[in-house]
Amino acid sequence: MRGREAAHASKVLRYCKGDPIFIVDGKGNRFEGKIHDIAKNYVRARMVGGATQDENRPGIRLAAGIIKKQNRLEFIVEKAVELGVREMIFFRGENSVKQKLRLDRLRSIAISAMKQSLRAWLPELHVFDSLEKAVTHYSTCNFIVARQSADHPFATAKKPPHEPFLFVGPEGGFSKNELSTFQRIEADFISLGESRLRTETAALAILAQFHFCCARFTK
Amino acid sequence: MRGREAAHASKVLRYCKGDPIFIVDGKGNRFEGKIHDIAKNYVRARMVGGATQDENRPGIRLAAGIIKKQNRLEFIVEKAVELGVREMIFFRGENSVKQKLRLDRLRSIAISAMKQSLRAWLPELHVFDSLEKAVTHYSTCNFIVARQSADHPFATAKKPPHEPFLFVGPEGGFSKNELSTFQRIEADFISLGESRLRTETAALAILAQFHFCCARFTK
Repeated sequence: MRGREAAHASKVLRYCKGDPIFIVDGKGNRFEGKIHDIAKNYVRARMVGGATQDENRPGIRLAAGIIKKQNRLEFIVEKAVELGVREMIFFRGENSVKQKLRLDRLRSIAISAMKQSLRAWLPELHVFDSLEKAVTHYSTCNFIVARQSADHPFATAKKPPHEPFLFVGPEGGFSKNELSTFQRIEADFISLGESRLRTETAALAILAQFHFCCARFTK
Repeated sequence: MRGREAAHASKVLRYCKGDPIFIVDGKGNRFEGKIHDIAKNYVRARMVGGATQDENRPGIRLAAGIIKKQNRLEFIVEKAVELGVREMIFFRGENSVKQKLRLDRLRSIAISAMKQSLRAWLPELHVFDSLEKAVTHYSTCNFIVARQSADHPFATAKKPPHEPFLFVGPEGGFSKNELSTFQRIEADFISLGESRLRTETAALAILAQFHFCCARFTK
């Protein structure tokens, strides 16, 4: 291992010769090694125990409207990786105050979070110019949309949907057009509670609640 | 209204004469006013519609071990306020890397989050020197502890507990002593899923799941 990852392992994590090390490739593989030789810019490790393949690729997709503050977008990415999503989509909402985002930076946040939480899958990150384009691209998914005024919570779900795709709006919420789009594709509106949540809070709450919903049916 | 709040209203929120304004006092009162006169350092508003008292003081308490990064502690406070907690406790865990925190800064984060989410109650914030001291102080509560290896998720709860007090550990997790303390007081260990979550992620996930758990019984 050379370059940035090696520098991180030696300088930040302060790994030493003999330390165990875990390596994930973002494609489902996890390797366990033991450090054989380490310097500022390279790490040599010997495989121990062989590679394991994590076949359970997470199935949840999460979409959020682009919001103004980059650090809050980064937060969504970090938490979504920790909580195990398959794919993250950001869309330019009609009410999005800002239209640009630094996708390269978000990708590097995703990689850090993957390593920190020892997940073997790296979620894909995509940006769509509109909500319409995003839902058209993923037309086989089951759309679940967080909305403050929705009349039922996740808790009432009979079973977790197949190919779930969770949506939260940008700061200003969904526009009338966007709500019509959701109605046309028969999306399911769910409530996350009474309070007005920020985009990043709603994103994390809907993910945590979805996991909870699944746990009810697998235990 | 004078001072910081007035400056915020005029400069940051850019309120103008005639704009509606909401004022919360952190003790359950919410006032609706209309701006009558506004300058750099003062705002005069006329009450419209009278005051409303929000009697539903949130009942959930949340405790987290002190973690190293102040911005992640601030994040916990912001999200806990948005999601409606009654009280937030930080404790010096035996595995806490850092022992200090800026309580004044956390209190101002709580106030901002209260205003942003238009909540009428400001949660109290307290710091305890150890987990033992925290659980002794709140001995009448029902303790629910997030633990990766716990064998049941929140989802299996028969009903939401009375006076719930949710606990998440610091970066290094709970120590053996701390786990013994929880066992002695018959705390309920619950799992938030398979992955290793950061403290702030676990805090938000346990809150979101608790809300979900309550929603199942009230709808």
